[in-house]
Amino acid sequence: MSEQKIPYKIYLDEKEIPTQWYNVRADMKNKPAPLLNPGTLQPMKPEELAPVFCEELVKQEMDDDTAYIPIPEEILNFYKMYRPSPLIRAYFLEKKLDTPAKIYYKFEGNNTSGSHKLNSAIAQAYYAKKQGLKGVTTETGAGQWGTALSMACSYFDLDCQVYMVKVSYEQKPFRREVMRTYGASVTPSPSETTNVGKAILKEHPGTTGSLGCAISEAVEAATSQEGYRYVLGSVLNQVLLHQSVIGLETKAALDKYNIEPDIIIGCAGGGSNLGGLISPFMGQKLRGEKDYRIIAVEPASCPSFTRGKYAYDFCDTGKVCPMAKMYTLGSGFIPSANHAGGLRYHGMSSILSQLYDDGFMEATSVEQTKVFEAAEQFARVEGILPAPESSHAIRVAIDEALRCKETGEEKTIVFGLTGTGYFDMVAYEKFHNKEMTDYIPTDEDLQKSFDTLPPQP
Amino acid sequence: MSEQKIPYKIYLDEKEIPTQWYNVRADMKNKPAPLLNPGTLQPMKPEELAPVFCEELVKQEMDDDTAYIPIPEEILNFYKMYRPSPLIRAYFLEKKLDTPAKIYYKFEGNNTSGSHKLNSAIAQAYYAKKQGLKGVTTETGAGQWGTALSMACSYFDLDCQVYMVKVSYEQKPFRREVMRTYGASVTPSPSETTNVGKAILKEHPGTTGSLGCAISEAVEAATSQEGYRYVLGSVLNQVLLHQSVIGLETKAALDKYNIEPDIIIGCAGGGSNLGGLISPFMGQKLRGEKDYRIIAVEPASCPSFTRGKYAYDFCDTGKVCPMAKMYTLGSGFIPSANHAGGLRYHGMSSILSQLYDDGFMEATSVEQTKVFEAAEQFARVEGILPAPESSHAIRVAIDEALRCKETGEEKTIVFGLTGTGYFDMVAYEKFHNKEMTDYIPTDEDLQKSFDTLPPQP
Repeated sequence: MSEQKIPYKIYLDEKEIPTQWYNVRADMKNKPAPLLNPGTLQPMKPEELAPVFCEELVKQEMDDDTAYIPIPEEILNFYKMYRPSPLIRAYFLEKKLDTPAKIYYKFEGNNTSGSHKLNSAIAQAYYAKKQGLKGVTTETGAGQWGTALSMACSYFDLDCQVYMVKVSYEQKPFRREVMRTYGASVTPSPSETTNVGKAILKEHPGTTGSLGCAISEAVEAATSQEGYRYVLGSVLNQVLLHQSVIGLETKAALDKYNIEPDIIIGCAGGGSNLGGLISPFMGQKLRGEKDYRIIAVEPASCPSFTRGKYAYDFCDTGKVCPMAKMYTLGSGFIPSANHAGGLRYHGMSSILSQLYDDGFMEATSVEQTKVFEAAEQFARVEGILPAPESSHAIRVAIDEALRCKETGEEKTIVFGLTGTGYFDMVAYEKFHNKEMTDYIPTDEDLQKSFDTLPPQP
Repeated sequence: MSEQKIPYKIYLDEKEIPTQWYNVRADMKNKPAPLLNPGTLQPMKPEELAPVFCEELVKQEMDDDTAYIPIPEEILNFYKMYRPSPLIRAYFLEKKLDTPAKIYYKFEGNNTSGSHKLNSAIAQAYYAKKQGLKGVTTETGAGQWGTALSMACSYFDLDCQVYMVKVSYEQKPFRREVMRTYGASVTPSPSETTNVGKAILKEHPGTTGSLGCAISEAVEAATSQEGYRYVLGSVLNQVLLHQSVIGLETKAALDKYNIEPDIIIGCAGGGSNLGGLISPFMGQKLRGEKDYRIIAVEPASCPSFTRGKYAYDFCDTGKVCPMAKMYTLGSGFIPSANHAGGLRYHGMSSILSQLYDDGFMEATSVEQTKVFEAAEQFARVEGILPAPESSHAIRVAIDEALRCKETGEEKTIVFGLTGTGYFDMVAYEKFHNKEMTDYIPTDEDLQKSFDTLPPQP
């Protein structure tokens, strides 16, 4: 292997941006479980989903068979603004760790949304525009998805209404201002603008909101306005489909230098990044062509894979959405107040849940102080200040590289660096001031949230 | 001209990163005026500068003759982390403006410091390390330079002490935390840690500080600690030398596609970006090989080029630094409190001042609400949320492109997009809320600050 020839950053050519998304479901023997109508407990029909989602996206959501779906040219043109994203060889980190491991990371943070979320936002905005809609609604927690969507809507001249979890709205005014720069309207959730918001405020006065609650409000806002649909930045099959560009580019960059990864690592909240990053590699694994260790990393404080149940659950607090089968902590789960590291959704993508249940991938959980230690170590040698979410993957990549140091193995590790932490400096400040604490829910805590699971069909 | 073949982003290959800096002074017939000893009014000797600056940097500061200076390998290795930076064709902006002009921008914001400042920070940190120093001191206003220097010092394991203008320290806690992430210590200025700080606090209790004051403190801190030197992120000749990588890469990218710019535009505070961006083009102009319109853009509220005097002045409030001949508003000048757009230094690089005085470049000033209008327009079509500083150049690039629309001329415009605005959302918020106002100093205001100019030698 001619090490010296591998540059720090492997940039693909603009012409090498994938022109098709890859749908990993096509290669899954056990398909992900369908969405259920919470009233009838029967699989949702396209016509039932149509009032909520754009037509084309409903098709993508339900398509378990088509392996490759062409990316429309308008979306490709937008991708060219910030893609291909670099695959970076972590030479400096390897040196610092003094490990024989070879570490690569796919960096998705070099755009103003600061994360990979833009890959799906632009696709969803495009299909909304194509359908002749006026606008879309969505929720956002930390604000990355909301920012990405506002950029995409600005590009296609669509109205963009964002319900932002109240605690983030207040603690992250800067994210809000970025969204406003792109012309979005941002409402703190729960709000008085929806029935479900009013009901939640009545039941829990003074609540600072949750992602599940903001989803309920955004769905209600979409279905109660003419010419609006709801869009979601993670969990859904369509989102993983769009995010496959991450994995396809990663694979193309590795192939260019004949690099074979041994371990692929991604952080997992709802699964959008992980699902996208691993998709083509998982495809090879499912087809029996290759084997890789694939590791999902989640926060110890929100451990849906590692301690959740594989069950049908509500996707939102207001229970207005279809039910999904997934690894879940129960829709009543709320991460502890000291949780800073993102990845706070109670459930997990149905695709990834099925793959995990079938043994095609591993999962592990890490505590947030260890995550921020890794983040700071990474920032100091690699230059990039990582998002707390991404830093979960950094933590495990470092741990695996240190294991290689012990064993002397020259493993090739690839991880997803989903974004930058410029809007997360409050969390970094807590870490610097040693005010950051860890939290692992007790079995009793989890039992309480499992009690919010619905009866299984 | 085969338009279609020009990609959105022109990325040079890693091997095409310049291996030499270009020193524009070598091609200047009228050299920039030397720094003067404020006591003797005689040109500073190297041995007089040595207690303040690293030896190698003193050499670079005083070298008016060597056209090309090799970039040490350790610096090139660091450059590879974030360079080459892309030259982006603003196809979306052109379309939005419906202009026949062709617009390109060199984007220096794709690194954690968020600006071009890293190009000189890493060089200055390297020479400090090479000299066996323990650490460096500096000042920072908005925080871009401080962040860049803390990243560079972290890389070379040097202590980094940053004096941050108090108003920024308080209003930009996130910048401070980024610096702390990289291990820097950050002190609000004026402080009680230096004699000059104490004196200023005594004279102006409750002052929120200024760049000139923070410089004085940083210089005192450097000269009063064993093994420390002072470093500066703009104005100096050495800084423009290091920043020439911006222009050299820009030129290489343009040459790759046989693109000939007509107009080159850069924002100007102390001159670090503008001087770097234009250097190879200015070299051609000075040698009579080519002609370009070169435009410096400054805030109407801090108009050193357009309304300042070309005179010897103090570089800092405490008058501990050598005197420089430059376009200046007087070291007593303080931008009005409503000034949000950066570029607030009272003086200007001696190199640029001489070139401007000799008629090799133009200068114009713009008001900040117009700057933020341009920033928002740019963000919405080009995706990147620009720094307020960079947006001065965007404003004038848009104005020139609109002029082309009127005349039908297909001019090629290149401007420097020095950085991102993620840490400037307070200013954006003011703009969104229509709370941003403009300010143009009156002639009387300026006369007052001109009165702080020293007697001319």
